Amino acid sequence: MSHNTYGHLFRVTTWGESHGPAIGGVVDGVPPRIDLNEADIQPWLDKRRPGQSRFTTQRQEPDTVEIQSGVFEGQTTGTPISLLIQNQDARSKDYGDIKDKYRPGHADYTYDAKYGIRDYRGGGRQSARETAVRVAAGAIARKILGSDIRIRGALVQVGSDSVDRGNWDWDESDRNAFFCPDPVAAARWTELLDKVRKGGSSVGAIIEVVASGVPVGWGAPLYGKLDADLAAAMMSINAVKGVEIGAGFGAAALSGNENADEMRMENGHPTFTSNHAGGVLGGIATGQDVVVRFAVKPTSSILSSRDTITRTGEETEIATKGRHDPCVGIRAVPVGEAMMACVLADHLMRHRAQADER
Amino acid sequence: MSHNTYGHLFRVTTWGESHGPAIGGVVDGVPPRIDLNEADIQPWLDKRRPGQSRFTTQRQEPDTVEIQSGVFEGQTTGTPISLLIQNQDARSKDYGDIKDKYRPGHADYTYDAKYGIRDYRGGGRQSARETAVRVAAGAIARKILGSDIRIRGALVQVGSDSVDRGNWDWDESDRNAFFCPDPVAAARWTELLDKVRKGGSSVGAIIEVVASGVPVGWGAPLYGKLDADLAAAMMSINAVKGVEIGAGFGAAALSGNENADEMRMENGHPTFTSNHAGGVLGGIATGQDVVVRFAVKPTSSILSSRDTITRTGEETEIATKGRHDPCVGIRAVPVGEAMMACVLADHLMRHRAQADER
Amino acid sequence: MSHNTYGHLFRVTTWGESHGPAIGGVVDGVPPRIDLNEADIQPWLDKRRPGQSRFTTQRQEPDTVEIQSGVFEGQTTGTPISLLIQNQDARSKDYGDIKDKYRPGHADYTYDAKYGIRDYRGGGRQSARETAVRVAAGAIARKILGSDIRIRGALVQVGSDSVDRGNWDWDESDRNAFFCPDPVAAARWTELLDKVRKGGSSVGAIIEVVASGVPVGWGAPLYGKLDADLAAAMMSINAVKGVEIGAGFGAAALSGNENADEMRMENGHPTFTSNHAGGVLGGIATGQDVVVRFAVKPTSSILSSRDTITRTGEETEIATKGRHDPCVGIRAVPVGEAMMACVLADHLMRHRAQADER
Amino acid sequence: MSHNTYGHLFRVTTWGESHGPAIGGVVDGVPPRIDLNEADIQPWLDKRRPGQSRFTTQRQEPDTVEIQSGVFEGQTTGTPISLLIQNQDARSKDYGDIKDKYRPGHADYTYDAKYGIRDYRGGGRQSARETAVRVAAGAIARKILGSDIRIRGALVQVGSDSVDRGNWDWDESDRNAFFCPDPVAAARWTELLDKVRKGGSSVGAIIEVVASGVPVGWGAPLYGKLDADLAAAMMSINAVKGVEIGAGFGAAALSGNENADEMRMENGHPTFTSNHAGGVLGGIATGQDVVVRFAVKPTSSILSSRDTITRTGEETEIATKGRHDPCVGIRAVPVGEAMMACVLADHLMRHRAQADER
Repeated sequence: MSHNTYGHLFRVTTWGESHGPAIGGVVDGVPPRIDLNEADIQPWLDKRRPGQSRFTTQRQEPDTVEIQSGVFEGQTTGTPISLLIQNQDARSKDYGDIKDKYRPGHADYTYDAKYGIRDYRGGGRQSARETAVRVAAGAIARKILGSDIRIRGALVQVGSDSVDRGNWDWDESDRNAFFCPDPVAAARWTELLDKVRKGGSSVGAIIEVVASGVPVGWGAPLYGKLDADLAAAMMSINAVKGVEIGAGFGAAALSGNENADEMRMENGHPTFTSNHAGGVLGGIATGQDVVVRFAVKPTSSILSSRDTITRTGEETEIATKGRHDPCVGIRAVPVGEAMMACVLADHLMRHRAQADER
Repeated sequence: MSHNTYGHLFRVTTWGESHGPAIGGVVDGVPPRIDLNEADIQPWLDKRRPGQSRFTTQRQEPDTVEIQSGVFEGQTTGTPISLLIQNQDARSKDYGDIKDKYRPGHADYTYDAKYGIRDYRGGGRQSARETAVRVAAGAIARKILGSDIRIRGALVQVGSDSVDRGNWDWDESDRNAFFCPDPVAAARWTELLDKVRKGGSSVGAIIEVVASGVPVGWGAPLYGKLDADLAAAMMSINAVKGVEIGAGFGAAALSGNENADEMRMENGHPTFTSNHAGGVLGGIATGQDVVVRFAVKPTSSILSSRDTITRTGEETEIATKGRHDPCVGIRAVPVGEAMMACVLADHLMRHRAQADER
Repeated sequence: MSHNTYGHLFRVTTWGESHGPAIGGVVDGVPPRIDLNEADIQPWLDKRRPGQSRFTTQRQEPDTVEIQSGVFEGQTTGTPISLLIQNQDARSKDYGDIKDKYRPGHADYTYDAKYGIRDYRGGGRQSARETAVRVAAGAIARKILGSDIRIRGALVQVGSDSVDRGNWDWDESDRNAFFCPDPVAAARWTELLDKVRKGGSSVGAIIEVVASGVPVGWGAPLYGKLDADLAAAMMSINAVKGVEIGAGFGAAALSGNENADEMRMENGHPTFTSNHAGGVLGGIATGQDVVVRFAVKPTSSILSSRDTITRTGEETEIATKGRHDPCVGIRAVPVGEAMMACVLADHLMRHRAQADER
Repeated sequence: MSHNTYGHLFRVTTWGESHGPAIGGVVDGVPPRIDLNEADIQPWLDKRRPGQSRFTTQRQEPDTVEIQSGVFEGQTTGTPISLLIQNQDARSKDYGDIKDKYRPGHADYTYDAKYGIRDYRGGGRQSARETAVRVAAGAIARKILGSDIRIRGALVQVGSDSVDRGNWDWDESDRNAFFCPDPVAAARWTELLDKVRKGGSSVGAIIEVVASGVPVGWGAPLYGKLDADLAAAMMSINAVKGVEIGAGFGAAALSGNENADEMRMENGHPTFTSNHAGGVLGGIATGQDVVVRFAVKPTSSILSSRDTITRTGEETEIATKGRHDPCVGIRAVPVGEAMMACVLADHLMRHRAQADER
């Protein structure tokens, strides 16, 4: 895998900086004769788009996607699909201050140390703006997967406040600004995030993404494991610090009796009586829901003044003005869904290549 | 990445089944003129070797490694290094029962569903025995990294019992059967695991691996992130269900003020006043300790009888006899260290290739 | 390697069809802090650009390149460089006839058989128009290689008429429409190609590309051989049917005494008394000129009527009108140079990664 | 692709030196439930095995292959197949002379310059002995391809003496020591090679490999072209200096009318009236025979004394004693067949992954 490319057979290469003329990507390996046009992609971009509530950055970007190749008369041709999204509301002057100061929690220092140069405007390539291209690629991946596979994401924790799983309602997650499946938690979060936002601070979150309908057998031992690929995919999203599958870190506290999911037959098909595995055993899908959770750190751009240093090694302070999300975890929900879709589309083809000739 | 290969420039390909004649691997991309012989690798294999205490499987394997190529007169030649470990104590007859029954929590069902065939003896390719090859490869990776980079792992939680970080002593982790850095916890775990073992059950664990001395700049945006590669590497280890970096899942509950590590100058060098980032920002090493934790589920092979089905779809029960670890998390410590070493060796070369011509 | 991507560390992904809105590509892995702007790329595109003489297609394309990312204030940042070239003079109506008929010698039939769909306008993705992006990528590769490595290409045979190597003058190759280093041959070819062009036919050619200054040691055994990578790179150019290195096919007729290049010392440095090897031994550069030749078949689009079939399996005839090169080999010269540059830039970094820490 | 690995989905990694304890390889990605045992592989190794006539090296190696993993009860399991071949007749003392002198035409100088160290015994990793592993992998590839695809190779030129295609008889190629399909040429070559052998010199050759039954559609634009992959595969064989497809270099001298293969319908199926394309158009198989030729240089190890230098830069002479093939091109025939099989098996799976869901 190259540094700005992910996937093996369903391959996505992205490019672009926060304040450059545009961002985009190339999706290669898409099977031919799939119905595809911009209208299939735009709704997912709209879901991630900033400025839709007071809880996300106020940068105004229509995020209109343009397909530049690989589609002819409304169908994929099997050749690479180039996707373009223009940047419209870049205000580079907001970033003059960070030209010479490293923002704590951001990758300013590490990019500079690695490359000796960086496009500091809006964070340049480090910006979460790049995730729009992932969402567009994810929309194409969903078309490959078809309607039998359903991928849904939800915010399940903001700060230390978790949803009550007894209240879980997927439809609810489309009705509030947080993609929260628990209306009671959503109400609490409104209050919490207003307070955070007004205080000029930020807060972390946990996202859960669930894929239903994934056929048993997808995935591969040992270094192409479905869960290992999902872990890398989620960890590659900006600000993510942890990933878990099924029972996840909680599995450490379980006994073998509690953890191992028992099997029964149901209508002539193998089934499990629980899903601590999160739908993956030995790196291969079990046919149950594939369940991934990932943790997003609090937005590093905050109004409070923080200790830092300059490029030339002087101690100083910085308070980030610009426009930022009080909780970047919210917009990470559609991004996590997209990464799940991309990983699954890749594994669909990888499985078909080796093991599906029956 | 191919399914049984990991790494980009430092590339490891493994092969072999639990009860086949041998297991082994090929390590490609190793720089030339590094002093290397079997004695550099054996100590790490010995650390992972089974049968060293009553808390690990009683299978007796010397795990003696043989270098078959790529080394001449005690130095690496730059050509592929083939590593061979003979299997000696395979008792395949213990596994007659699982030929037709799927063990809950194991990958028996998924391998069979994917391939329509499997070597069921000792779990075949699914067996954690394969991790011996990772440890051998990790030993070579350590030689590439040199002595300035130090990689150490520890068991930090067994079941729901965590170490007290106030008691942390790396030296202690070499003195007990659990790689536990807290002698007080180690004493508790002896009791706990004896109880688990005698009860025929098993328990999960959490491992922490720390790499010190990693230079600022290693890693790469956006799909070659150091933390994303670490997440995939750890998640590819048998039984791992979660991976986190630095503050990890705990970051969700932090505010932006608490989480973002501030910077100061120390003896003319940039430094941080905390390490919530776990040594990685934007996928690139900060120069601080790289800190990874991963969760291992309880061993799925337990003595209690469990509901399951047969290959032909009949409901039945199974109790796994064989020889097993009451807590596979213990022997995952040297495996996690090895994966850290392999990922870092790969990134050393990836960084040198693109960005180190200064 | 993915299907529309080449290179390992210097990686180029291309997209676009002959009559789509644009063509382009993403160049990933470029080292940081290299001076780069459009003016570094444009001259090479101009060299390949159609419509510059009566011996190439009359399609008028300015082939103006736009850098969309990866460059900041005139320097590369180490992040992916997106390149865009607008299509301007697409006349899709010329191609109505090939919508349903397969043109002999073209990939119409094979694309249709593979994908069940194709963008037939101007050949779609099969069009040699894609090679413009290779030339742009090659210009970036040249910047990485620096001025000590010089890459030059020449047309050495048109039809069955070869240059006289006694007349070889590199400067001459910039003065005629054929990139021909022999002015006497160039004069003959003017006459030959006028005849071919007026007759509505076409003719093949052989191109030679020479890289001087390549350091001894670049390349790698056994499946990353410099010559194997060059062979794939040249064979991937449209219409290429053969590739050879150094003595090439002629080596078959040599004796061991004639073929093996002897070595001497010259000014304290190892040197060779001949270069039958073409600068590569065992897949690794010798420090001599790297010499590659490749054969281009005659343009398949000709005015004469030819037997073919339709998509629905009816026998028919076709004569290709459109606008075409009487000898596509001419414009393959800058494309071959670009592929040489890309392969070398990749090997520079691959070598540095593994073997250049001395 | 890593340096010692080839293929994308059908992936082969090889290791080992000429005079090490063994050579071997790992074949990954093989579909499950294919009947496979050593007897399927051994005949192909026997075909390549040295010492079978006076025209190949007299080194005596049984080249007995051992399958170490990936096969259970006579069937592939979908997991990696490790192949081992012991070295038996290594006489390292023959090579004391080359420890410090570079043999002209060999890779002694380039390996040393690249790595600063090399296993000089028998050429170490540069030795054509490694090609035995390719042949073993090719045998597995043939099993994947099945009996509908037939791959055959022949020696078509020795020195400057070519076969008469009018005499071509595939069965004949199994009856003589040269894999020559023309009995008249075979008789001439016996005389020619006896003379070369007695004179202590060597001679080059050209090999043709033909694959029949390859389905239309395999292959992929633009950097996964079937012919580009074949070019790299053949060029990666020791001593190969040129590769061509179909009309190859001869295509340069053809007119468009002569070269483009016309199409007709035959029994309801598309067919071509000629095969200048060599079975590949636009990188995709046409359904015709895939025809590849490659040129092998004369063996560089010859008895005549040649000018060379030492590692320390002193001018000297060398005459290679050891045991060598007077024409390495002969044993390159089964190696070329194996590489064709490997490339096709890889493309079978690559095609199935993306385009075969119909």
